[in-house]
Amino acid sequence: MNFYDVLHRRRDTRAEFTGAPVDADVLRRVLTAAHAAPSVGLTQPWDFIVVRGQETRRAFRDHVLAERSVFAAGLDDDLAGVFKRIKVEGILEATLGVVVTYDPRRGAPAVLGRHAIADAGLYSVCLAIQNLWLAATAEGLGVGWVSFYREDALRRLLDIPSGVRPVAWLCVGPVAALPDTPDLERHGWRTRMPLDDVLHEERYTPRSAR
Amino acid sequence: MNFYDVLHRRRDTRAEFTGAPVDADVLRRVLTAAHAAPSVGLTQPWDFIVVRGQETRRAFRDHVLAERSVFAAGLDDDLAGVFKRIKVEGILEATLGVVVTYDPRRGAPAVLGRHAIADAGLYSVCLAIQNLWLAATAEGLGVGWVSFYREDALRRLLDIPSGVRPVAWLCVGPVAALPDTPDLERHGWRTRMPLDDVLHEERYTPRSAR
Repeated sequence: MNFYDVLHRRRDTRAEFTGAPVDADVLRRVLTAAHAAPSVGLTQPWDFIVVRGQETRRAFRDHVLAERSVFAAGLDDDLAGVFKRIKVEGILEATLGVVVTYDPRRGAPAVLGRHAIADAGLYSVCLAIQNLWLAATAEGLGVGWVSFYREDALRRLLDIPSGVRPVAWLCVGPVAALPDTPDLERHGWRTRMPLDDVLHEERYTPRSAR
Repeated sequence: MNFYDVLHRRRDTRAEFTGAPVDADVLRRVLTAAHAAPSVGLTQPWDFIVVRGQETRRAFRDHVLAERSVFAAGLDDDLAGVFKRIKVEGILEATLGVVVTYDPRRGAPAVLGRHAIADAGLYSVCLAIQNLWLAATAEGLGVGWVSFYREDALRRLLDIPSGVRPVAWLCVGPVAALPDTPDLERHGWRTRMPLDDVLHEERYTPRSAR
C-alpha cells in the first residue's frame, strides 16, 4: 500500500475488532516495524509483551472500566452525556494486546542524547508505537491505544519490574472496517483542527496574537 | 513509495544534508502527515515551528555544541574516543528546522484518556513526530532529531510560553543519501538488537530468566 494512504487511513480502533486470528508472519512484520524505530543513543529502550490470555485481558478490562468510571465522575452533565456513548477500549474483542514498555536502564548510564532531556527515552518508545500502528494499518489490522489505566496496576498484572514503565496497551487485530472519522469527532467530543492553527514561522506566536 | 520501504529506509540524518530548498508543497504534505497523528482525547496537543533564520539556528547550534561538551566530559576515555567521531546535529547544514512542542492545556481539563496517565499528551506529540519523520523519508528528505539542548534555552530562543514544552528540534531537508546503517552503529557506539531480545509472551520475562 502507498505510504500516505496508510498514514491517513490509520484510525484508533475500538468497536470494529472482529477477533479473527492474526497471521504469525503479519504480527512479526508489525513488531519488526516497531523495533525499527529511531531511539535516543540507539538504546532501543522498548519491550513488547504480546498478551492473548483471556484471564489477563479480562482483569485488565475490569480495571479499565473502573478507571472509565473515575473519569466519568469528574465530568459536567453535558460532557458526561457525550462520554456515555464513547467506547474507550476493545481489549476482549481484539485478537490480542501488545503492551509496550520503556526501560530507562538500557544503554545507561552513557545514553547519547539523554543527558539534558530525561524523557528522551520515553519519546523513543512512542516512535516505536507509531511505527507499529502504521504497519498494522498497512496489514489491514486495527489498533486501539487504551490509556484508562494506572501504570502500577498494569505492572502488577504482567510482572513488569518497578524500573520499567508501561507506556501503552494496544489492542490489535483484524477489523470489520476502519472508520473515516475519529470516534471522538463522530461522537462530538472534539473536532480536528486545521493545520494552520498549530503552525508557526520562526518563533512561537500565541494564537491570540495572529 | 511502498509503506515498508519508507519505514525501513528512514534514518536519523546529520552529515548528509545538502541545504537544497524544500518545495512548499512537500513541506505542507510532511506537516499535514504529522498533524494527522492520533492524539489522546483528540487534543492534537502539538505545535510546529518552522525555523529558517540563520541567526536563530546559529544560536541554537552554539548551545547544542556546548551541551555536547557537557556530555563528552562525563564519558570515560574509551567512550570519549568513540563519541569524538560522532556528529550530533546538522542544524545549519539542513534546509530548515522544525521544532515540535507539547501544549498540555489544549482540550484541558477534561482530556479523555489522560486522567490516569499525565504523560499521555506528551506521547501524542511523539506520534506526530514519527509521522513527520516517515513522511519526510517518503519525500526523499532527511530528518535528524537533535536532543543535546536544555528545554528552557530553546523556549527562550523561540518565545515558547512557559506552559508549553519543547519536545524536539528536527533538522529537515534534502540529503545526499540516506545511510543504510545508523550512525551510532557505524561508529561502534551501540548495535541494533534482535527483535526477540525485546519480545515477551503473556508476561514480562527478565532477559536473565530466558
